[in-house]
Amino acid sequence: MGLRQDILLFNVESEEELERINTLAKKHRKPARVALRINPDVEAHTHKFITTGKKENKFGIPYPEVKKIIARRKNYSKVEIMGLHLHIGSQITELAPYREALEKTMHLLKELETESNYHPQYLDLGGGMGIIYQNEEPFTPHEFAEMVTPYIANKGITLILEPGRSIVGNSGILVCKVIYRKKGVGKNFLIVDAGMNDLLRPALYGSYHQILPLQEKKNSQEVYDVVGPVCETGDFLAKERALPSLKEGEFIAVMGAGAYGFSMSSNYNSRPRAAEVLIEEDKFYLIRRRETYPDLIRLEAIPPHLQGE
Amino acid sequence: MGLRQDILLFNVESEEELERINTLAKKHRKPARVALRINPDVEAHTHKFITTGKKENKFGIPYPEVKKIIARRKNYSKVEIMGLHLHIGSQITELAPYREALEKTMHLLKELETESNYHPQYLDLGGGMGIIYQNEEPFTPHEFAEMVTPYIANKGITLILEPGRSIVGNSGILVCKVIYRKKGVGKNFLIVDAGMNDLLRPALYGSYHQILPLQEKKNSQEVYDVVGPVCETGDFLAKERALPSLKEGEFIAVMGAGAYGFSMSSNYNSRPRAAEVLIEEDKFYLIRRRETYPDLIRLEAIPPHLQGE
Repeated sequence: MGLRQDILLFNVESEEELERINTLAKKHRKPARVALRINPDVEAHTHKFITTGKKENKFGIPYPEVKKIIARRKNYSKVEIMGLHLHIGSQITELAPYREALEKTMHLLKELETESNYHPQYLDLGGGMGIIYQNEEPFTPHEFAEMVTPYIANKGITLILEPGRSIVGNSGILVCKVIYRKKGVGKNFLIVDAGMNDLLRPALYGSYHQILPLQEKKNSQEVYDVVGPVCETGDFLAKERALPSLKEGEFIAVMGAGAYGFSMSSNYNSRPRAAEVLIEEDKFYLIRRRETYPDLIRLEAIPPHLQGE
Repeated sequence: MGLRQDILLFNVESEEELERINTLAKKHRKPARVALRINPDVEAHTHKFITTGKKENKFGIPYPEVKKIIARRKNYSKVEIMGLHLHIGSQITELAPYREALEKTMHLLKELETESNYHPQYLDLGGGMGIIYQNEEPFTPHEFAEMVTPYIANKGITLILEPGRSIVGNSGILVCKVIYRKKGVGKNFLIVDAGMNDLLRPALYGSYHQILPLQEKKNSQEVYDVVGPVCETGDFLAKERALPSLKEGEFIAVMGAGAYGFSMSSNYNSRPRAAEVLIEEDKFYLIRRRETYPDLIRLEAIPPHLQGE
């Protein structure tokens, strides 16, 4: 399937950005197609860092501003405003925030039609669909479709969606090796060779990731904090997990690492980033080789007068 | 100044690690020099992620364990336990936690001497010394020395310190360009070209970094959230800061970015990492070139049967 070039739009966050794009379009003599990202002021009930559609967030244009921009859209002669975009957050498990955002958007569209004779060709209903990390009960794609369809059916609008992590989140795991088991005071630690630099979500969002031994084990369970070798207490992958007894050198899988896993990874503590491996049926392919120490300093240069010191 | 090879020690976190090092030392027929990292159970009054010396932290060996290990140290024939190491946290601004840790350590040392006739050659008093980001009032190196000296003077112990960010934290700034000024609802945003992928501390620790315009400005101030172009609300560098009016294309400096800045940076949102520039007197040297998009995918490989799709 080829890329649908016709739905490639700049989602514009502010009138300043619209002006910038219009200026660049003029300069390059190439009309630009955009959507206005509106701020629906909706609470998506997700982590505060990934709620993106509330009025106090940096994202999107408030409704009154959208109306003003659409009213004077002819001023932006090199820009075609193809539709509206909204995005209410990430890892959303309830339909209600989408419904609320849609209600508001449909109301706005009616006003834009009445006041400015504006009819959008596209509506990009963003907001990433939630997945199961622990005990979430996200809506299904079918339920989503049933909710959305009545709003946009027969309105001549093409819907664009941004399913986000639901495409890849649960298709990736982070495999780590047990380095040590360690008894602390009143706590057991499973020290593994992956850390917060490989998977930042637990430290940054307090996220839960399921931990499974790579080989099924029937032995009795103990409660562990699963931690990495990085030099801070924020370096944990899981807290207080009942796990079967695991020996040094055995492997665990940190589940749900396919989204916001490698993409947020860093070289913190001078740790080369992990390899990425694609599994297809019974075959595997190295699709990103493991970083090496030379990779870490490859872009560095010592000024001539400091060399050899 | 050459590297003091004689004080290169493995700081050992657990008896399991000591065993591992002993085994490897045997295998390579090369004795290993170590220090035992003890857990002093001290509250360093810093961010919970960078408190490292409390008993519930993953770091260090509890005192009773240390005593047992020292008592049977002859069992580890290929390892020489040169001393003790402790580390109570990072960005510590008070002397009291160091003093408490020292009191406990000196007490432990007396017991080790009496019970096991053990006398360490080195004491590594770790815990990073705090710097001024906002209105911290960290102790001075002189005050630190005055506090520590009475404990270790005339005891035949060489002190090792880990001053941490106090060496480099305030010697680095993150320079960003203003992309847009944006009026939100009840909030002004200064959108700049650096984000949480470049400086994670505000998102991860809620850290404060001072923001200064690169060129001094006398005009009236407005209150802004300084945010980056990354796709989440956690992408902020500063909140509610009074700043002079800044135009698009002008530069700001995020101060105190010399420690835990570039070292924690990532390619999140497919953002190439920043260039690093050394300033010396009136000269500058590019010491790490800016990453490019080809750099981001340099280590990736498409499996043969998926190529050309």
